Amino acid sequence: MTELEQRRRAVQTALAGHKVDALLVSSLANVRYLTGYAGSNGLALVTPFETHFFTDPRYALEASQSITCKLHIAKGPLQEAVAGIVKRKKLKKIGFEPAWLNLEQHQKLKDLLPLGASLQPVPGVVENLRMTKSPEEIDQIRKSVRVNSEAYARTLRRVRLGMRERDIAAELDYQMRLHGAEKPAFDTIVAAGAHSALPHAHPTGQRLEENDLLLIDMGACLDGYMSDMTRMAFLGIPTKRVRTLYDAVLEAQMTAIEAVRPGVTAARVDGAAREVLKRHGLDRQFVHSTGHGLGLEIHEGPRIGKKDKTVLRAGMVITIEPGAYIDRLGGVRIEDTVLVTANGCEVLTPTTKEFVHL
Amino acid sequence: MTELEQRRRAVQTALAGHKVDALLVSSLANVRYLTGYAGSNGLALVTPFETHFFTDPRYALEASQSITCKLHIAKGPLQEAVAGIVKRKKLKKIGFEPAWLNLEQHQKLKDLLPLGASLQPVPGVVENLRMTKSPEEIDQIRKSVRVNSEAYARTLRRVRLGMRERDIAAELDYQMRLHGAEKPAFDTIVAAGAHSALPHAHPTGQRLEENDLLLIDMGACLDGYMSDMTRMAFLGIPTKRVRTLYDAVLEAQMTAIEAVRPGVTAARVDGAAREVLKRHGLDRQFVHSTGHGLGLEIHEGPRIGKKDKTVLRAGMVITIEPGAYIDRLGGVRIEDTVLVTANGCEVLTPTTKEFVHL
Repeated sequence: MTELEQRRRAVQTALAGHKVDALLVSSLANVRYLTGYAGSNGLALVTPFETHFFTDPRYALEASQSITCKLHIAKGPLQEAVAGIVKRKKLKKIGFEPAWLNLEQHQKLKDLLPLGASLQPVPGVVENLRMTKSPEEIDQIRKSVRVNSEAYARTLRRVRLGMRERDIAAELDYQMRLHGAEKPAFDTIVAAGAHSALPHAHPTGQRLEENDLLLIDMGACLDGYMSDMTRMAFLGIPTKRVRTLYDAVLEAQMTAIEAVRPGVTAARVDGAAREVLKRHGLDRQFVHSTGHGLGLEIHEGPRIGKKDKTVLRAGMVITIEPGAYIDRLGGVRIEDTVLVTANGCEVLTPTTKEFVHL
Repeated sequence: MTELEQRRRAVQTALAGHKVDALLVSSLANVRYLTGYAGSNGLALVTPFETHFFTDPRYALEASQSITCKLHIAKGPLQEAVAGIVKRKKLKKIGFEPAWLNLEQHQKLKDLLPLGASLQPVPGVVENLRMTKSPEEIDQIRKSVRVNSEAYARTLRRVRLGMRERDIAAELDYQMRLHGAEKPAFDTIVAAGAHSALPHAHPTGQRLEENDLLLIDMGACLDGYMSDMTRMAFLGIPTKRVRTLYDAVLEAQMTAIEAVRPGVTAARVDGAAREVLKRHGLDRQFVHSTGHGLGLEIHEGPRIGKKDKTVLRAGMVITIEPGAYIDRLGGVRIEDTVLVTANGCEVLTPTTKEFVHL
């Protein structure tokens, strides 16, 4: 059985527990996970003994070469084709993904379904499978992490006073692509000086100045798999205040990484980072969660946050990225991509966490 | 009144017609259109006399500097904060965007709303406003188009036999960024040889060979505004068959452009392209619509397709991009970004449509 078949089998096994005759998979990441389809318009309908995949004629050629389940090329809306199969197979209870179907699509689908068929929300079936990565997936993520770090290293060598944030971002993305990434996993963040205090800054035309903090948050998407890393540099010799800020965030990050192992909750890992920052009087400057799962999406389960009770398992891949942001001074965030292993964890990101002075 | 205030006023004016006390805007593009917020986690609630904007603490600093309506920084889920305002303002009927709220969010919001408040689907209010661009928006799109064409021109000069599709794509994206784009408007398509027959091909490691068709479909995102262009080149001297294919698609594209003017339906413009291709026996090879609106999103209304009855108005910006795809031989698509003007239309894309031989 191929890995795709195994995944579809796992969904099929889950159907009975949710008391549905089929699951309509509408999240494109979930569709990709189950069928390999990487385009922008696809649906999968998993029934106990088969999986149907639906796309439009633009993808007919690619799909006919790559899809290993039942392929339907729909000339009209995909939902019409789905309803056709529901009718033909006499399916009654159709599970759907409530986080991946909007009210408009839900209403349309309801109108199209044959009499006697109904829709039931069945959340998170594929997302739960996706949380634990297979060895093949871990290899993909390793490749993505490697390309990302390589692009960072090559770009950092060229960074000079006077460069604009957006030029650095362009170079990072270019290097990523040259080394095999399809694209950045998200909009690359390059934030200099006070901009670094904005956790989700967009690169601007601002030029690097002496004594600027420089925050770079970047990830690659390679064969669909994401990586995520944040590193800090300083243009000059950091003041004691900046150095102290950096050390506190690094301590929080390392402490959280030490907490990562099978059996602990995501909230516990988040707490580990938060306690360190609290000790340094920086807990109120830490305005986001400690991390998140990643894989086919840049943000997936588990969320490494205060309230996430998910118990970590070997094979999960998460980010650990505490930060502290101080208005006017700037912000520091340090982030690695981390694999949960049988005994603890492995930091996949190879890039040094030394506070680089440029 | 600023342009943002005018837009909010237009939504406020629409509330009564939909019999709601407020509209919850959850599409990020719509939120940006009304508030200027360009981040990834924001909601707007438009009531008859005020607009409330909600985001999380990561965006507190940026938002406090830029948001000109009522700003709420929510520590928990944004929907909780929205429900709080609904309660405080004693709002009863809350309109929502059915295409931009999923079943999970809808259910959560329903659970959070105070007794007596209810949710009503109100589709397309902001999208309808967005379809007609203001002079400022048209200027933004012009800039985006210009940067996109500049990146294309600079890259094309470097294209040589033996280059990989993905290297060309990386160079296109890099040039775009250097010339001021935030990012590509979508995953840049570079498809050589038989790959060009896949309307949504991903750039691969395939190298350019003699007698390859080369299809490049690219767009820039600049200050949030998109452009979109497709051009073809040929590595060598095209055969008569390829030349004929190119000419037929170009004729279809020019004919569709001639059909663009205020008062005609989108379907009529689509029909104009389709008729030409039919005359050349290529209608079955034209497997998508003729075009789409673009602006803050790469695909927005109107859809220039068989069934879209939208009547074109001055200020709309659309793509015109017929194509014909022939298995093994390859595909040809030619696409411009086009502004509907008072008397007809203006092709914004400055790049030549000559069939370039490299």
